[in-house]
Amino acid sequence: MQLGMIGLGRMGANIVRRIVKDGHTAVGYERRPHQIDVLRQELGDDFQGSTDLAEFVRTLETPRVVWVMIPAGATGAVIDQVAELLEPGDIIIDGGNSRYHEDIKRAEQLQPKGIHYVDIGTSGGVFGLQRGFCLMIGGEAEPVKYLDPLLKSIAPGVEAAERTPGRTGEPSMAEQGYLHCGPAGAGHFVKMVHNGIEYGAMAAYAEGLNILHRANYGAEHDGEFSAEETPLEHPEYYRYAIDVPEVTEVWRRGSVVASWLLDLTASALHADPNLDSYSGRVSDSGEGRWTIDAAIDTGVPVPVLAAALFQRFSSRGEALYADKMLSAMRKAFGGHNELPGA
Amino acid sequence: MQLGMIGLGRMGANIVRRIVKDGHTAVGYERRPHQIDVLRQELGDDFQGSTDLAEFVRTLETPRVVWVMIPAGATGAVIDQVAELLEPGDIIIDGGNSRYHEDIKRAEQLQPKGIHYVDIGTSGGVFGLQRGFCLMIGGEAEPVKYLDPLLKSIAPGVEAAERTPGRTGEPSMAEQGYLHCGPAGAGHFVKMVHNGIEYGAMAAYAEGLNILHRANYGAEHDGEFSAEETPLEHPEYYRYAIDVPEVTEVWRRGSVVASWLLDLTASALHADPNLDSYSGRVSDSGEGRWTIDAAIDTGVPVPVLAAALFQRFSSRGEALYADKMLSAMRKAFGGHNELPGA
Amino acid sequence: MQLGMIGLGRMGANIVRRIVKDGHTAVGYERRPHQIDVLRQELGDDFQGSTDLAEFVRTLETPRVVWVMIPAGATGAVIDQVAELLEPGDIIIDGGNSRYHEDIKRAEQLQPKGIHYVDIGTSGGVFGLQRGFCLMIGGEAEPVKYLDPLLKSIAPGVEAAERTPGRTGEPSMAEQGYLHCGPAGAGHFVKMVHNGIEYGAMAAYAEGLNILHRANYGAEHDGEFSAEETPLEHPEYYRYAIDVPEVTEVWRRGSVVASWLLDLTASALHADPNLDSYSGRVSDSGEGRWTIDAAIDTGVPVPVLAAALFQRFSSRGEALYADKMLSAMRKAFGGHNELPGA
Amino acid sequence: MQLGMIGLGRMGANIVRRIVKDGHTAVGYERRPHQIDVLRQELGDDFQGSTDLAEFVRTLETPRVVWVMIPAGATGAVIDQVAELLEPGDIIIDGGNSRYHEDIKRAEQLQPKGIHYVDIGTSGGVFGLQRGFCLMIGGEAEPVKYLDPLLKSIAPGVEAAERTPGRTGEPSMAEQGYLHCGPAGAGHFVKMVHNGIEYGAMAAYAEGLNILHRANYGAEHDGEFSAEETPLEHPEYYRYAIDVPEVTEVWRRGSVVASWLLDLTASALHADPNLDSYSGRVSDSGEGRWTIDAAIDTGVPVPVLAAALFQRFSSRGEALYADKMLSAMRKAFGGHNELPGA
Repeated sequence: MQLGMIGLGRMGANIVRRIVKDGHTAVGYERRPHQIDVLRQELGDDFQGSTDLAEFVRTLETPRVVWVMIPAGATGAVIDQVAELLEPGDIIIDGGNSRYHEDIKRAEQLQPKGIHYVDIGTSGGVFGLQRGFCLMIGGEAEPVKYLDPLLKSIAPGVEAAERTPGRTGEPSMAEQGYLHCGPAGAGHFVKMVHNGIEYGAMAAYAEGLNILHRANYGAEHDGEFSAEETPLEHPEYYRYAIDVPEVTEVWRRGSVVASWLLDLTASALHADPNLDSYSGRVSDSGEGRWTIDAAIDTGVPVPVLAAALFQRFSSRGEALYADKMLSAMRKAFGGHNELPGA
Repeated sequence: MQLGMIGLGRMGANIVRRIVKDGHTAVGYERRPHQIDVLRQELGDDFQGSTDLAEFVRTLETPRVVWVMIPAGATGAVIDQVAELLEPGDIIIDGGNSRYHEDIKRAEQLQPKGIHYVDIGTSGGVFGLQRGFCLMIGGEAEPVKYLDPLLKSIAPGVEAAERTPGRTGEPSMAEQGYLHCGPAGAGHFVKMVHNGIEYGAMAAYAEGLNILHRANYGAEHDGEFSAEETPLEHPEYYRYAIDVPEVTEVWRRGSVVASWLLDLTASALHADPNLDSYSGRVSDSGEGRWTIDAAIDTGVPVPVLAAALFQRFSSRGEALYADKMLSAMRKAFGGHNELPGA
Repeated sequence: MQLGMIGLGRMGANIVRRIVKDGHTAVGYERRPHQIDVLRQELGDDFQGSTDLAEFVRTLETPRVVWVMIPAGATGAVIDQVAELLEPGDIIIDGGNSRYHEDIKRAEQLQPKGIHYVDIGTSGGVFGLQRGFCLMIGGEAEPVKYLDPLLKSIAPGVEAAERTPGRTGEPSMAEQGYLHCGPAGAGHFVKMVHNGIEYGAMAAYAEGLNILHRANYGAEHDGEFSAEETPLEHPEYYRYAIDVPEVTEVWRRGSVVASWLLDLTASALHADPNLDSYSGRVSDSGEGRWTIDAAIDTGVPVPVLAAALFQRFSSRGEALYADKMLSAMRKAFGGHNELPGA
Repeated sequence: MQLGMIGLGRMGANIVRRIVKDGHTAVGYERRPHQIDVLRQELGDDFQGSTDLAEFVRTLETPRVVWVMIPAGATGAVIDQVAELLEPGDIIIDGGNSRYHEDIKRAEQLQPKGIHYVDIGTSGGVFGLQRGFCLMIGGEAEPVKYLDPLLKSIAPGVEAAERTPGRTGEPSMAEQGYLHCGPAGAGHFVKMVHNGIEYGAMAAYAEGLNILHRANYGAEHDGEFSAEETPLEHPEYYRYAIDVPEVTEVWRRGSVVASWLLDLTASALHADPNLDSYSGRVSDSGEGRWTIDAAIDTGVPVPVLAAALFQRFSSRGEALYADKMLSAMRKAFGGHNELPGA
């Protein structure tokens, strides 16, 4: 089967690599010719590329399958452009990080033209080439079914995890690592929540490890506290110089918190035990925010996911004005001075 | 009636001032002679002072009333010292910020000696002289009753607030601004929770005002977002240059969030509209922490009070290690670079 | 000056009462004739009412001032209707709880017709008649200035609170209890954040009082804990039968947490000390949600305000599915049984 | 090597099984003879058991290794008892869920007797027999080294996870699934934080899945909202009937949130797709609480871990009083009725 890929960045190129390795062919569109050359050299005749969108579309067999894999901000315009060149029966896939609201709108816009729209949330990051990509898919049943051979090649496959006890017979789609979640937007919706969970789980590890990092506080601060600090009531309880990298390593085996995120954390700590190469100003892409928005819309309490998001905001200094306000109140009622430079 | 005051700092001195103004007399102990001189000059013969603890005790009429008003860290030692000099029937008051656990222990230790122990949480800060101090009292009924004339003079009095609808007749103790909350420790327990609430309410204002502070974000950032930032979907919704000091002022009259904390906030913002004189590194005294501890011990959910406490920790940079851990994970799975200095 | 009021429910009627008491006149529109009769009887010739919208508009002097004070859900349609009947130079005020996004849209729609649109967030609730309403105003400068005599009558006035230290001379608008916050939507934006703060402050009190409510836990549970409960390490620390209504009363005088919300809490607890007449299923109107949305849009950390909102969701049982999921995980890894009816 | 095990419940018995399978021998003490018989039958001569503590101790080779694996509440008394029967050079291990404070105290008490004390936090739950137990160890270096052959047999072993990139040569202790974390208490300290993280990660999944569970809210509630509910602004965004069990299955392969907890969740949802067999009243053992206590003591912000703990409290109805207080305030200022049974 043939896949057209718009955008040959890391994600797009790796998806192309996985399907070609599995016996499919690919056509790529990309403005940077170098990206095309690299894949061409690597994949030979199974891959064709073009820097011209119209030529890219002409090269594709019908019904055309066009996977758009570019930054969320640029996706809308490119979909509009390519839709002009497509015909009824063709399929456009948005595999990027669009908000699912956009999917609903786009599917409606494309329907009168007979063009099918499929949204696919992909997880797997820089490891996707090797592990396969976890695919969360939204759209009509028919085009999703049509894409099945490609999706199967991109996804990790059933052997990527032990089968869940009780599941027998032919593995379900989900067991192979891809899932048709519902109509337009459902794929990005599920991917959005996936990322919301990711934020929460990451924060759980980070906060816990911070406690371990501080477990020697009693030894370090014995008896020396300023007037504005709360003294440790029991310094003897905090005399542990914990080797945090080794702790993350030991938890990888047999513990309840073993996870792929923990594997990555252990790996990062092995490479940089004191985390000196990181700033600690943590960005957030839209999904974490949209997850909270969705929870608020539907009245679902998400205290943990929201706390994780807000800590990222705080990490970037966005609480400063609020914190100054607290200092101002403390000075006003208690005479406490929290001065700049103090 | 006569009050002995150990510690003539701002709080101790102001309590002395209030009772003398109300017709009582006071004896003060303080290591710094200057503090004694100031009060002596101001209050005349109604006040005697000493820099010698034994002399201070000898000067007091029996049964002696000894109010200890010094930093929490020093309170225990001073109470031990003075208890050696007291006789059965005398009363020791801890009016500072001790943890209520200490009160329970001290009351037990003093009981065999026949010395009464009373713990009093006081709120009112630098405004207590003029507004009166709100007193939360723990201890046996008898000594608390004995102290009533003094407590009445220190507290704000019933006229400090409109009477609660439905309350008639002789004002209760609480309506006069002081309350016997229960046995030893009850005073500091209630004061502890008071401060826990204070943290939460302060944070509510600070967070909300931070949103107002950012209400012009759409005008300021129109279209200019880095790849790692989530762009504003609707910049047109954030084009308000809100005058935050004036907003705090308008809320003081008729709004649901009118409060003394808001009065102080409006005052601080009037004096320093941009909060330039504050660092935003917010200290926390023990009470906020102990409040969460008590909630955890008794299984009471306090998500808001805890979030307020943790934001103070974060304001002092204590989340940095955790934040670096998040950066490390993001780089590991997504290749995102959050480098120092970036 | 004359005010036209659409909607003579409690809020609308009380605004009419305040302005008439202050020497203005009012015309009311309301579908329920009884509401009109009541005001007519009470206010005499200073008030005219109609159940017919066109007649209502005809009765108004030009430039017409039409204040719409009806449930948020119905506001849009009524504004559309009345706008058809108005002329250039007339003013429409939305005094309800609309989302400020609507204000921006409506102002744009009305501008070509020469109709001025002003949004006013009002706080004060059932006490507004007596205390005055705190008014947060958005819109163009000119119509807001024109409305000044009416706004002044509706607002609480400068005497409603002590003047902020340092403020001298002619009281500012804010000091009189109303504020022009910015262009269309600014009034509802500030009111929205006001309510967000309200949620946070309310939760701070509620959580703290819950701890006091549980302060006798050690006496109540001494030594009797099931296998799935964490036993109290120090039951002796939780032997206080705190009189929560009296505590809220004592805090009203001299304490840092004194506030109007606390006044109301003390009043409610005086009337119903055990809160038996409340279900504890806490509703939330849109403002609390929209506050969090705005914070997320602009990257402002609001852990406290969000925790307050989510606790309301939880109070209505909306966490149940998540909680069952936790039970399911606990059973899966630890064999813990958390069965229905157990 | 020989291990003495006090307590042959599931955990103790499984540890015995693992070491015997690996060529060691075991002696068990247990009051219930049936438990002894079961193991005796299963393991033959490599296992001896006794219902008499003195006999148990006499049976052990010196230096004796006594692992105590009983409920935390009973551990202290049993350690005191057995310590009376031991000799200098013997080793006591607390493998249960004691608070690490206890470890520090016990190690100090046993030191004068020449008895070594080792605390071991074990994770692995009901799967430990098959997966191995993750061991977090505190105590002096010498006895921990002496125990190494046993620990290696109990732990999962290096093959339980892929090696972390960059780790080469002889696998470290941590890579084999056990770690000497520091002096007395360090094992239970690290286990405590492990569980704190576990709470946070569990909550992240549960909250996210709750959003998916509600993703059809727009279809279900179209236009029907009571006056006290916030209507959905965009019901068209919530028309997804997500198959939550299948989503947890698909995330197991290739996604960033793949983890052992997710494996268990997928398994639980496969067995009971609607979670009907769970009550949603979620217990918490001490570790989650103690984690927050430790964070507060050392000034580490843990908003996510704390929110997870408090949601468990709320799941058991512990927020009810606070929620009623919110209802009371809402009625007081806004006239909103949230009545029981309403």
